[in-house]
Amino acid sequence: MFAIGFVGPSGVGKTTLMEKVLARLKSRGRRVSAVKSAHHTVDVDRPGKDSYRYRTAGAQEVLLVAPGRWALMRETAVEPTLQEALALLSPVDIVLVEGYKSEEGLPRILVHRSGLSTDPLTYLTSEVVAIATDDAQLTIPAGVQRLDLNNPGAVANFIVGLKANCDHI
Amino acid sequence: MFAIGFVGPSGVGKTTLMEKVLARLKSRGRRVSAVKSAHHTVDVDRPGKDSYRYRTAGAQEVLLVAPGRWALMRETAVEPTLQEALALLSPVDIVLVEGYKSEEGLPRILVHRSGLSTDPLTYLTSEVVAIATDDAQLTIPAGVQRLDLNNPGAVANFIVGLKANCDHI
Repeated sequence: MFAIGFVGPSGVGKTTLMEKVLARLKSRGRRVSAVKSAHHTVDVDRPGKDSYRYRTAGAQEVLLVAPGRWALMRETAVEPTLQEALALLSPVDIVLVEGYKSEEGLPRILVHRSGLSTDPLTYLTSEVVAIATDDAQLTIPAGVQRLDLNNPGAVANFIVGLKANCDHI
Repeated sequence: MFAIGFVGPSGVGKTTLMEKVLARLKSRGRRVSAVKSAHHTVDVDRPGKDSYRYRTAGAQEVLLVAPGRWALMRETAVEPTLQEALALLSPVDIVLVEGYKSEEGLPRILVHRSGLSTDPLTYLTSEVVAIATDDAQLTIPAGVQRLDLNNPGAVANFIVGLKANCDHI
C-alpha cells in the first residue's frame, strides 16, 4: 500500500493539513486511511466505558462493534513498526501517516509554517520529497518539491502524482 | 478461536459479570479478548481528537498508535457478523462476547438477576449452556448448568471446562 508521511515540529499544523488533504483525496475518488503515531500516551477509550472495563480487566484486545463503525483496541508491550501498523489496515489506495518520523522507506512531506522558531531543516531527511510551507523566502533543497501549505488540493494532487509514479516502478 | 457469549436483559449486569470473569480467566493464565456489540451508536472517538478529525475527513480506517496500545477504528456500512468480528482479533485462548444474541453457533451464558421484571427465559435459546443467576428459586432447564451470578470464579471455571471439552471434539 502506498503510504506517505507528514513530518514537522509540533504545532506547525500537520494534523490540519493532513485532514484537509485526506478530504481532497477522498473527493478525488481515492480510498484513504490514516495512521497517527502519538509519542505520548493517548487513549481513545474512557474510564467507565464497557470497552475500558474489559481492557483494564485484562483483555488482550477489545472489539467494540456498533452500527456504522467498529473499534479494535489492543494493549501492546512494544509499539508496532510502521510496516506492522500498515499490515493492520484493510487495503486502500493511500495511507497518510503522522509520526513515525524515523522509520525508513516512507516518503515524507515536511510541514513548515513561517514564524515558528524551529528550523524546518531539522526535519529534512533523504525521505522528504516535498516541503509544504507558507514561507516564500524558504530555500527548498534541489530535488524537493515546494508545496503551498495553504493549498491542500495542490498537496493532494502532488500525492496522487507521486503514487502514480510509484505505481509505474 | 473459542468464543462464548453473555446474554440477558439490559441492566442485569452482563458487563460487570463479563469483566470479573475476564479477570479470573486472565489470572488462570488464559489469554482473553472481549467483543461487545452495541445496538446503539457508540463512539470511542471524541470530537476534536486527531483520529476523529481524520475519520470525519473521510478516512476509511484510522489507526492510532501510542506507547502501550493502539486503536484501529473503521467506518462500516454493514455491521460485521460475529465470524467477521472474531476474524479481526489476534489469536487468544478465549473470547468473551457481549451482544450478537441472534448469531448462531455461539454458546451462551444467560445472565439473570432476581427482582428484575424481565422473564429470563425470553433469552433462552438452544445455544444457552448455563444460566448465571442469584435466584435459587429459578428453575433451570435440563441440560443447562446453574451458575452463581455472584461467583465469577465459578463462571470462569465453567468456561475453562467447556473450552476443554470443545478442544476434545
